[in-house]
Amino acid sequence: MSLENLADAFYDELRDVLSAERQLTKALPKMAKKASSPQLREAFEKHLEETKHQIERVEQAFEDTGKAARSQKCEAMAGLVEETEEMIKEADASEVLDAVMIACAQKVEHYEIATYGTLCTWAKCLGYDKALELLKQNLSEEEATDKKLTKLSTKINQAALA
Amino acid sequence: MSLENLADAFYDELRDVLSAERQLTKALPKMAKKASSPQLREAFEKHLEETKHQIERVEQAFEDTGKAARSQKCEAMAGLVEETEEMIKEADASEVLDAVMIACAQKVEHYEIATYGTLCTWAKCLGYDKALELLKQNLSEEEATDKKLTKLSTKINQAALA
Repeated sequence: MSLENLADAFYDELRDVLSAERQLTKALPKMAKKASSPQLREAFEKHLEETKHQIERVEQAFEDTGKAARSQKCEAMAGLVEETEEMIKEADASEVLDAVMIACAQKVEHYEIATYGTLCTWAKCLGYDKALELLKQNLSEEEATDKKLTKLSTKINQAALA
Repeated sequence: MSLENLADAFYDELRDVLSAERQLTKALPKMAKKASSPQLREAFEKHLEETKHQIERVEQAFEDTGKAARSQKCEAMAGLVEETEEMIKEADASEVLDAVMIACAQKVEHYEIATYGTLCTWAKCLGYDKALELLKQNLSEEEATDKKLTKLSTKINQAALA
C-alpha cells in the first residue's frame, strides 16, 4: 500500500504487529515444550496467554483507524522465528538450549518494544486515544517480559557454562 | 554448527552480530540519501561511522573466543532491512518517509540492543573481559542512537501528520 501520511503509516505498522504477534503464538508453544527449566517453560506459557490478549488489543486498536483489522506479513518476525528455530536445532545440551532460547526471546521482545513504542508515539500524534491506551498496555507487558527473561538468564547461564 | 556450551553460543551470536552490522553499513547510506530532514540524514551518517567502529570492536571481541572472526548471515537483520526497503518504496511524501525510516531504524537499534545485551551477559559469565569491554561500548552507542531517534521523531512526526 502507498503511505501518504502518518495515519497510513500507523495502519501499516498495526497490520505488521498483528502479524508479528500471530506468528509468535505459533513459536511460543514450541519454545515452552523445549524448555528444560520449569521457570522458563512457565514464562513462555504465561507470555503465550499474554500474547493472545495482546492480539485482541491490537484488533481493537484498528477501530480508531476506521479500517479493517487485517494483518500483513511481518518479515522481521519471520526472520526472528527462523533464527530461533535454527538455534534450537543446533543446541545440544538442554541448559545451552535454555540460554539460547532466552536470547532469541529477548530479540523478539525488543522488536515488539520498538514497534509498540513507535505505534504509541504515532497514536498520540494522531489523537487515537483508544488505540494509545491499548497499545501502551502491550508495550508495558513486553517490557516486563524482557526484564523477567534477564532475571531468569542469570541462573540459566551459569548452568550452561559447563 | 552444534552448540555444546555457552562458549559455543557466544561465538555463534558474535558471528550473527558481525553479519548484522555489516548488513547495516549497506542499508544506512541508502537511508541517509532518502532522508529529507537534515538532522535525520546527519544522524544516519553519524551512525554509519559508529557502525564501522563497532564492526572493528566485534572483530576484536573474537580474540577471547580463540576462534576466527567470521560472520554468519543474520536472517533477522536481513528481514529488518527488507522491511525497511519495502517501507521506503511505499512512502509517498518525504515527511512520512522520514517518520517511517525512524521507526525502522529503531527496530534495528532494538535488535542490536537485545543482541549486545545477551553478548555482554554471556561474556561476563565466560570471563571474556576484553570482549565484555568492547561489546559494552557498542551496547551504549546503540542505546544512545535509539534515544536520539526518539528525540528526532517528535518534530518529524508532526510534519508527517498533514
